[in-house]
Amino acid sequence: MKNTFGNSISVTIFGESHGEYIGAVLDGMAPGIDVDFEYISHMLTLRRPDGKISTPRKEKDEFKIVSGVLNGKTTGTPITILIPNENVKSGDYSQMRTVARPSHADFTAQCKYHGFQDSRGGGHFSGRITAALTAAGAICKLALEKKGIYIGTHIKKCAGISDRNFDDIFCDIKALNGKTFAVLDDKTEEEMTSAILEAAEDGDSVGGVLETAIIGMPQGVGEPFFDSIESLLSHMMFSIPAVKGVEFGAGFEIADMKGSFANDPMRIKDGKIITLKNNNGGINGGITNGMPIIFRTAIKPTPTIFKPQETVDFVNMCETVLEPKGRHDPAIVHRARVVQDAASAIVICDALSARFGTDWLI
Amino acid sequence: MKNTFGNSISVTIFGESHGEYIGAVLDGMAPGIDVDFEYISHMLTLRRPDGKISTPRKEKDEFKIVSGVLNGKTTGTPITILIPNENVKSGDYSQMRTVARPSHADFTAQCKYHGFQDSRGGGHFSGRITAALTAAGAICKLALEKKGIYIGTHIKKCAGISDRNFDDIFCDIKALNGKTFAVLDDKTEEEMTSAILEAAEDGDSVGGVLETAIIGMPQGVGEPFFDSIESLLSHMMFSIPAVKGVEFGAGFEIADMKGSFANDPMRIKDGKIITLKNNNGGINGGITNGMPIIFRTAIKPTPTIFKPQETVDFVNMCETVLEPKGRHDPAIVHRARVVQDAASAIVICDALSARFGTDWLI
Amino acid sequence: MKNTFGNSISVTIFGESHGEYIGAVLDGMAPGIDVDFEYISHMLTLRRPDGKISTPRKEKDEFKIVSGVLNGKTTGTPITILIPNENVKSGDYSQMRTVARPSHADFTAQCKYHGFQDSRGGGHFSGRITAALTAAGAICKLALEKKGIYIGTHIKKCAGISDRNFDDIFCDIKALNGKTFAVLDDKTEEEMTSAILEAAEDGDSVGGVLETAIIGMPQGVGEPFFDSIESLLSHMMFSIPAVKGVEFGAGFEIADMKGSFANDPMRIKDGKIITLKNNNGGINGGITNGMPIIFRTAIKPTPTIFKPQETVDFVNMCETVLEPKGRHDPAIVHRARVVQDAASAIVICDALSARFGTDWLI
Amino acid sequence: MKNTFGNSISVTIFGESHGEYIGAVLDGMAPGIDVDFEYISHMLTLRRPDGKISTPRKEKDEFKIVSGVLNGKTTGTPITILIPNENVKSGDYSQMRTVARPSHADFTAQCKYHGFQDSRGGGHFSGRITAALTAAGAICKLALEKKGIYIGTHIKKCAGISDRNFDDIFCDIKALNGKTFAVLDDKTEEEMTSAILEAAEDGDSVGGVLETAIIGMPQGVGEPFFDSIESLLSHMMFSIPAVKGVEFGAGFEIADMKGSFANDPMRIKDGKIITLKNNNGGINGGITNGMPIIFRTAIKPTPTIFKPQETVDFVNMCETVLEPKGRHDPAIVHRARVVQDAASAIVICDALSARFGTDWLI
Repeated sequence: MKNTFGNSISVTIFGESHGEYIGAVLDGMAPGIDVDFEYISHMLTLRRPDGKISTPRKEKDEFKIVSGVLNGKTTGTPITILIPNENVKSGDYSQMRTVARPSHADFTAQCKYHGFQDSRGGGHFSGRITAALTAAGAICKLALEKKGIYIGTHIKKCAGISDRNFDDIFCDIKALNGKTFAVLDDKTEEEMTSAILEAAEDGDSVGGVLETAIIGMPQGVGEPFFDSIESLLSHMMFSIPAVKGVEFGAGFEIADMKGSFANDPMRIKDGKIITLKNNNGGINGGITNGMPIIFRTAIKPTPTIFKPQETVDFVNMCETVLEPKGRHDPAIVHRARVVQDAASAIVICDALSARFGTDWLI
Repeated sequence: MKNTFGNSISVTIFGESHGEYIGAVLDGMAPGIDVDFEYISHMLTLRRPDGKISTPRKEKDEFKIVSGVLNGKTTGTPITILIPNENVKSGDYSQMRTVARPSHADFTAQCKYHGFQDSRGGGHFSGRITAALTAAGAICKLALEKKGIYIGTHIKKCAGISDRNFDDIFCDIKALNGKTFAVLDDKTEEEMTSAILEAAEDGDSVGGVLETAIIGMPQGVGEPFFDSIESLLSHMMFSIPAVKGVEFGAGFEIADMKGSFANDPMRIKDGKIITLKNNNGGINGGITNGMPIIFRTAIKPTPTIFKPQETVDFVNMCETVLEPKGRHDPAIVHRARVVQDAASAIVICDALSARFGTDWLI
Repeated sequence: MKNTFGNSISVTIFGESHGEYIGAVLDGMAPGIDVDFEYISHMLTLRRPDGKISTPRKEKDEFKIVSGVLNGKTTGTPITILIPNENVKSGDYSQMRTVARPSHADFTAQCKYHGFQDSRGGGHFSGRITAALTAAGAICKLALEKKGIYIGTHIKKCAGISDRNFDDIFCDIKALNGKTFAVLDDKTEEEMTSAILEAAEDGDSVGGVLETAIIGMPQGVGEPFFDSIESLLSHMMFSIPAVKGVEFGAGFEIADMKGSFANDPMRIKDGKIITLKNNNGGINGGITNGMPIIFRTAIKPTPTIFKPQETVDFVNMCETVLEPKGRHDPAIVHRARVVQDAASAIVICDALSARFGTDWLI
Repeated sequence: MKNTFGNSISVTIFGESHGEYIGAVLDGMAPGIDVDFEYISHMLTLRRPDGKISTPRKEKDEFKIVSGVLNGKTTGTPITILIPNENVKSGDYSQMRTVARPSHADFTAQCKYHGFQDSRGGGHFSGRITAALTAAGAICKLALEKKGIYIGTHIKKCAGISDRNFDDIFCDIKALNGKTFAVLDDKTEEEMTSAILEAAEDGDSVGGVLETAIIGMPQGVGEPFFDSIESLLSHMMFSIPAVKGVEFGAGFEIADMKGSFANDPMRIKDGKIITLKNNNGGINGGITNGMPIIFRTAIKPTPTIFKPQETVDFVNMCETVLEPKGRHDPAIVHRARVVQDAASAIVICDALSARFGTDWLI
């Protein structure tokens, strides 16, 4: 379905970096859900380039909801969010039309759209489109909190520096949601920031790993095989530009474990079945077991760098060198974590709605 | 869609470990495609437990195609593959009905199906269902080869021992497809096998990493965002039981790279645009760039082990210890690689059909 | 999705008239639903050619359920029904490979499948495939009855003779479900049968109109626009071969009414909101209002007749005359009504599951 | 998928009658398609209330395309159309919140959305939403014309007065597309208009039948069973408010025909296979045969009338009488025909894209 994802609850995204609006249509949300404009605004602000690491864009993201919300509550019909694009001087991007930025989608867009694509600022491939996803997900995230389901993402690793693991997840999430730079161990913020700025000074960029925890999930949500919670979450995560890996629970480390170590022993605690470890990340056979859902994504360093790069002019079919100009983001992990939170919330709302019906979130 | 996946080409799977048949319906394949029964049989044999590592099941997997194939060619209508289950003594599994095997889906199945699930041998959650997926994918894999698109998977890592990387991928794939234990460097087979058997003697199991290469892909296939090739492949991969991670190109390692190193410089070679590295695994912005698609999955150690395990009786709500009995597979990576090949082939056929129409594969 | 329909609950059909099996996979049904094999068999028998009007096929339709049912109850995982084809002498159909039967799908199959289609007995286009749909729908129909939702279809018109309208719908449905030739007014059976046999003697065939009532539906099920109950039911109905029209409530007659007459006045009865008329067929804005869902389908006369017909040989591209041979069904309305019942039941279960969650039908 | 329809090409609609915007996202259209803003505007104007029959709204529908179109051509990414709502005095509709307008969706909306629905002017159930569908379809309709596929709809019947049948369909479509009141026989316009105005004077409304022809379709497009062209078109048509019936070819009349009369004899003409009649409306077995696709819809009289109506207050659960006020449309058939044209175009583009790939329309 190309730009639409989800079944019981779906999201459709649209827009280009330099078009009039980017936006999203969130369909299938239960009626009567509170829509907190402040909270959406807060999440959009966290997603934006900030003055510390990136060259900030001047204004904050304005947004408006033009359907599906009345008197601050969802009506049950499609919720449409519009985010106007700022007046970016598009001349900065004029070279992109024929010269591919390495590891961007310029060339593949050409292969698919035959030159008709909007290549200004990355067009529809721009990470900016994730702002729309973030706004839609913000509505879902708050709705989940009302049902005792909390989602939080931290920068597990950036520029080779690691944050501590989740510990008391509820408290950790609470703390994360208030932070601009989402690390659990505050002192890693400084280390990571320094490393990012060092890379930036060198005209370079860095990547990282984002780790998400979802707690409070009812047991028995999801499906075996194709609609496994892992399948749905990874489908969504890999649609976020820059994600090159997704792993659940122990993830790739589990490949090196013995079964006797990897298996999660089970216990009964306060009348509820739990596991002592969580190497499966809260999911067995595609279905939630009630333990926290834990997953990580690999975020590649932003491909736009301030160094000359070997590339090609795909129209004139010649090799060339891309000279750096304009601004660049030396890191996006701290911003991408907001997108990951929001995108996860959409998937979880969809899975819950499928399981318990369209009114469950009310 | 639960047990159905794909749009232009879709696959529906069904069956339980101890039911009469497991099977798959492959719908949307172009008419006139050769269906090679020997090849399907070959892939099914590779997927089965073998005498070297696992306790082999006695007979080989018989299968029959009961619709959609006429005179050895696809008709264009749904292809239904049935694989009869062997007469397994179901008494071995009687304990499972109430006592959860740790890291299996026994408990989550209970949460979702309220005790009505078929728990014999794992029921619908059994890895055995992947035999049906394998048979369906075998048809797709051969169809792709006719169009110059080749898929191969090797055991990149098992029990901590690593295979070499892909080199001349075409030759590597050719070699892999003939192997029972799919490693590129033959001497790692012995090392891995020894490590597996050592774990087996200890009643334990091991996991691993599978790496897949897809070559010959046309450029410009896939979609930005939700139908990115990465999204579709990962969705499929995470539906295979035991997969806990999926990564493309440099995957999680890219998180530690600088942009200047991670970016894939572009060149023109023989009139075609290529990249000098392939850290993006053949995909930019969700769309193929013509370079090999490379991805890896993390396979957890088989949770069935021959050691006592702490667990719960979820019906009587008490803690208990699961005593080992019956047979167990100390490793499944060598078998899972066939499933990964086949499952990838279905996704790729779907993406190609969406892009170029339903007759393209003819 | 070609041969798969439905979201929360879906059905996938497969098979050809002369293949080994036709069948269906019903996915998403709640666990714990009773599966009554006698009832399925009963519905399959009603769908079969009978000795009175059609030349009967010798044996009755055997079927088996090879997955998704355990101890007579659904498990919650895909239910697969297989119906073996009888040993039909395929030589009767040899002419079909190149000579199109007018108003059959022979020629369009050629256009789409380029000669690779299985044309024996109509192949995948055969009305016989509806037996699989009927078996799947029989499970749904009984599940609905357990929740107080009843579905019945009568032959509203056949060969120009009309049955009476629904009156006490609950009683009417009860009566219909026991009948081989489903009319409400018993004396029309004789009239219709005579007219059918008269046409048969002349080597001709007749069509008719089928009317379905669904009672006991909860209010508020369905969606505005694309997932309106009307959209879903008509989508399903038009997939049944021979259906050329679908209308709800007053249907095409409403086109001639004034608004003041067409509108359904509303009242409160026993604390429940009802309408005094039902020109909207139980649906407003795509959503159920709690009144009976009423719809009719136009069934074309069976195109296989016992008269010479002008047609073409689409391989040799010449005009020719199709000479009659073999048996033909002078009418199928009395059999198609079973399919309509069953197919409706699938759609309604899907809509209810979407609305109230996957456990609602338990 | 609620407010999203289509696979290869999909449309998502959103908005409420009195919200800021209604709109549509058209996704999957080939890149490089001309977008003619004048033509879209023309179709929107035809859809609007006009001064002759309805009380006209003052301004014409403005619209803007905020994504997916660059330099007057589609980019291949989602096309978003926004249509601002005019400043309607919402007080006129204040009674609707608790008192159901008979045969409107007020009560079913309450059942589904529990009072959170936007009931001003019908909210999301308003026929006004079809303006967005019309704008999206206008793009598709022009794209089809470039490929020689033409769509036209006329008012086959209104207020009991019938228009002539299609004759030279190409010329008829050309003529229809220029008309405000789309009848083939000009003198019926006056008769129909008089009858409509007569009903209006009496405070009443009338319905009608719309007939659509689609010519130039390639042969072999569509699918047997669930993705039959009939299924897809009817699914779309029944999502248009007011449609209560859909029939193809001879439609319900075929129910009264003998097979020998109903069957369409086949011939070869200019090297192409044709049928001498077209009782099947261009579709056999769900697949196009190259003859014109012909279908009709039953449009119910607008339920808003200028007479007192018996109804209920669904909040206070009491019976009441709805007193007429404000304006009402005595007929919408002349406006709905534009929606039918446009909506058909979307479905046909989707089917063609599925069959021939995403670039076919270029």
